[in-house]
Amino acid sequence: MTLAELAQHLGATLVGDGAMSPKRLASLTSAGPDDLSFLMPGKPADTDAGALIVSRAHPVDSTRHYLQVDDVYAAYAAASQHMDPAPAQALGVHPGAYVDPTAVIGEDVCIGPGAVIEAGVTVGDASVIGAHCTVGANSRIGRAVVLMARVTLYHGVTLGDRCRIHSGAVIGADGFGFAPSADGWQKIHQLGGVTLGDDCEVGANTCIDRGALDDTRLGQGVKIDDQVMIAHNCVIGDRTAIAACVGMAGSTVLGANCTVGGASGFTGHITLCDNVHIGAMTLVAGDIRAPGAYAGGVQGARPMRSWKKNVARFNQLDELARRLLALEKRQNETKE
Amino acid sequence: MTLAELAQHLGATLVGDGAMSPKRLASLTSAGPDDLSFLMPGKPADTDAGALIVSRAHPVDSTRHYLQVDDVYAAYAAASQHMDPAPAQALGVHPGAYVDPTAVIGEDVCIGPGAVIEAGVTVGDASVIGAHCTVGANSRIGRAVVLMARVTLYHGVTLGDRCRIHSGAVIGADGFGFAPSADGWQKIHQLGGVTLGDDCEVGANTCIDRGALDDTRLGQGVKIDDQVMIAHNCVIGDRTAIAACVGMAGSTVLGANCTVGGASGFTGHITLCDNVHIGAMTLVAGDIRAPGAYAGGVQGARPMRSWKKNVARFNQLDELARRLLALEKRQNETKE
Amino acid sequence: MTLAELAQHLGATLVGDGAMSPKRLASLTSAGPDDLSFLMPGKPADTDAGALIVSRAHPVDSTRHYLQVDDVYAAYAAASQHMDPAPAQALGVHPGAYVDPTAVIGEDVCIGPGAVIEAGVTVGDASVIGAHCTVGANSRIGRAVVLMARVTLYHGVTLGDRCRIHSGAVIGADGFGFAPSADGWQKIHQLGGVTLGDDCEVGANTCIDRGALDDTRLGQGVKIDDQVMIAHNCVIGDRTAIAACVGMAGSTVLGANCTVGGASGFTGHITLCDNVHIGAMTLVAGDIRAPGAYAGGVQGARPMRSWKKNVARFNQLDELARRLLALEKRQNETKE
Repeated sequence: MTLAELAQHLGATLVGDGAMSPKRLASLTSAGPDDLSFLMPGKPADTDAGALIVSRAHPVDSTRHYLQVDDVYAAYAAASQHMDPAPAQALGVHPGAYVDPTAVIGEDVCIGPGAVIEAGVTVGDASVIGAHCTVGANSRIGRAVVLMARVTLYHGVTLGDRCRIHSGAVIGADGFGFAPSADGWQKIHQLGGVTLGDDCEVGANTCIDRGALDDTRLGQGVKIDDQVMIAHNCVIGDRTAIAACVGMAGSTVLGANCTVGGASGFTGHITLCDNVHIGAMTLVAGDIRAPGAYAGGVQGARPMRSWKKNVARFNQLDELARRLLALEKRQNETKE
Repeated sequence: MTLAELAQHLGATLVGDGAMSPKRLASLTSAGPDDLSFLMPGKPADTDAGALIVSRAHPVDSTRHYLQVDDVYAAYAAASQHMDPAPAQALGVHPGAYVDPTAVIGEDVCIGPGAVIEAGVTVGDASVIGAHCTVGANSRIGRAVVLMARVTLYHGVTLGDRCRIHSGAVIGADGFGFAPSADGWQKIHQLGGVTLGDDCEVGANTCIDRGALDDTRLGQGVKIDDQVMIAHNCVIGDRTAIAACVGMAGSTVLGANCTVGGASGFTGHITLCDNVHIGAMTLVAGDIRAPGAYAGGVQGARPMRSWKKNVARFNQLDELARRLLALEKRQNETKE
Repeated sequence: MTLAELAQHLGATLVGDGAMSPKRLASLTSAGPDDLSFLMPGKPADTDAGALIVSRAHPVDSTRHYLQVDDVYAAYAAASQHMDPAPAQALGVHPGAYVDPTAVIGEDVCIGPGAVIEAGVTVGDASVIGAHCTVGANSRIGRAVVLMARVTLYHGVTLGDRCRIHSGAVIGADGFGFAPSADGWQKIHQLGGVTLGDDCEVGANTCIDRGALDDTRLGQGVKIDDQVMIAHNCVIGDRTAIAACVGMAGSTVLGANCTVGGASGFTGHITLCDNVHIGAMTLVAGDIRAPGAYAGGVQGARPMRSWKKNVARFNQLDELARRLLALEKRQNETKE
């Protein structure tokens, strides 16, 4: 792709040679004279990049080529799509795939070696099912969906259009439901499914369990990082983004346009409104009804010796507080 | 299955038409006139369900059919098994499976496409090995075990009867054992195996590592959720249940009938007695010798601004406590 | 292997019958007269083991055979390699594997059933690719590398010599990069790769994401446990070891010879120097510039009732501290 073509895609003003075809989109540090890079406003242009995406206010010169844009970060995101060297999968059904004759496969679909498509499945046009994926019975996959290699969908899973699911993700495994009984735990079979809206992304080795009765549901444009665990009956609002290693216990309801920091947890059966932002490694243990930023836990690493003393004090905290209040009271009495 | 048949399975008293055959077991909200739902005691019967599991004390009428039971939740659990629409796997060994000729396969076994059964493996009667599972050499799988698609057992893993292992689970990977040396970390090969008792369930993408010398062991009826990590040499007592995202470092010993909340951790080489219940996101760092409920960490999300102030104070906690004690002392001296 | 041969491999002094060939390397508790075990200095020799690795200072007798060594733990590690009963994979390319004709496969390589080797891949001599692994286009695998069953490498992943990757690991999935836009999150394609040095080990179900532009990089001899998440652009120094369930957000830089306790987190865009040791379940939220041991969070489980009181006080901590300081000030004023 030439700079002229890129300029058109990005709505950029080209300053320099439009015929240049950058070899790579690269970081400022690693970019060379054949590469394109991008410079966030206010940062120094300390780079050998032959071409640079810059803000419209940035001074240009003849030492390299420039693409001037309104929003550098958005232009970088758009350019990354056009310059992604990821190879395309071969069109068609690989002879090593196992496709049930009752499955309905759309046009221009790629199905990789070893993929298993069970009975009653539908796969929309232009979707890619990677090697060794399993798509359980009666699941429905929208158009232009990408399942990377080794994604597992259990039966009764629905994916909207343009979803992108990474390797190792498991969607539709049993929710963790057991009733106590005299003979130990009695399994509660999980009869619901999982439904994802359009444009969702699910990271590597993430789990989204099927609902106990109704479906576990993700809205439109939900983005989930790696190693996340979404338990049965969770509902996640549109465009909410969840960082890695988060765990959501059953029946957690997240609003739209929320963000959740890495390794946070939700105790389940709680509801968060729209536009809530949760810090990293926070255990959310109750409803949140007002938009805004929230956090919990004790962030930050301290030298081991002083940390140990503070933790010991934490375990005396109620007693210390009581003694403080008693002191206050005595002092007030003394005054009177 | 008709209501009359269900009533017999659940030990329920039928009030209404026993010939009705509910289409689904559904939640109160989503159930319609063709569906069965269940009503926990004390909850309002605000549902269109055509049939309802209720407690014996619940008033009945002719607007719908009722199954009256002693324990609604247990009856729901039992009904969920009878009304699970999950499709059964086809009996027999799929032609796309790789079964070593020395493996001993029981009767009425299903082995899915791509499954790999290595030398010396035994698979008990009525067990299901899903697509793309690998069962390592000399592993022993009991009767009526279910491995969902894409479960990996390394060599020397033993599963009791009726175990159920979800997709992405890895049982028997190397424990994390290295000896420091002048040349960096020297690997300690992990020579033990993993043994699970009967009736265990292991969630999606959970890891249970093999022992360094002896086996890592789970008792009878142990239930483990998704994304859990059980390190080498752990021993887990009968009927203990572990929620998602928990990590247990090596040689943790849990008693029987324990429950562990999500995202909790165990620092390893510690022992917990029976009937211990650990709250979510707790780091258990020492033995627990008395049954009961325990928790740690700082639960709850707070507005970011006030949370930040409290965390800053946490890092002064020992100093604050010392100043409090000094004040107390001075006040006592003043009095005297 | 006989005791005489083992003695030679371990640099041990043999006391007893060098012709004995131990059946197993076993723990003190489970070892019998046919087995070898090891005794750490200062521990009681309460074992039926027929042969024992001991320190040179340990008294020997004729009740069993002894291997006397300088460093018992290192000798145990070395012995574990020689006595590992793990079966070797069959040499050659399994007929059920899918190897692209443009891939360059070294000598003495094992490629298991269902493995997928895409275009332009190179696999070094004596490497093992387990069943159902996928190796993405243009990835380069060094010599004597072991991929256990069901490892996924995306395209453009480089593994040094003697790396060992466990089942379920995903290396090279997309980093979690999205730019906010009026239409929701806009994907930032991840154009970098992942590079591992020689002698790295990666645990089961661990994820290492590809870089946004440059590679995510692990140095030489890095050891990573199960269920770990390494986000895009992280750089990990030589011989650093990371325990299970750790999450590192994007662009975290760890120095060499660090250790990270289980379930810890890194907030990203931070740098730690060499020789830093982080305690379990710590959230590292800033740079660390001095070697040493650090921890954070509130370790330890407490009885639920007293823990709840302390947590409640934590949420008043800033207020309590202010009241303490006010008391101090008043008392000082009273004195004057």
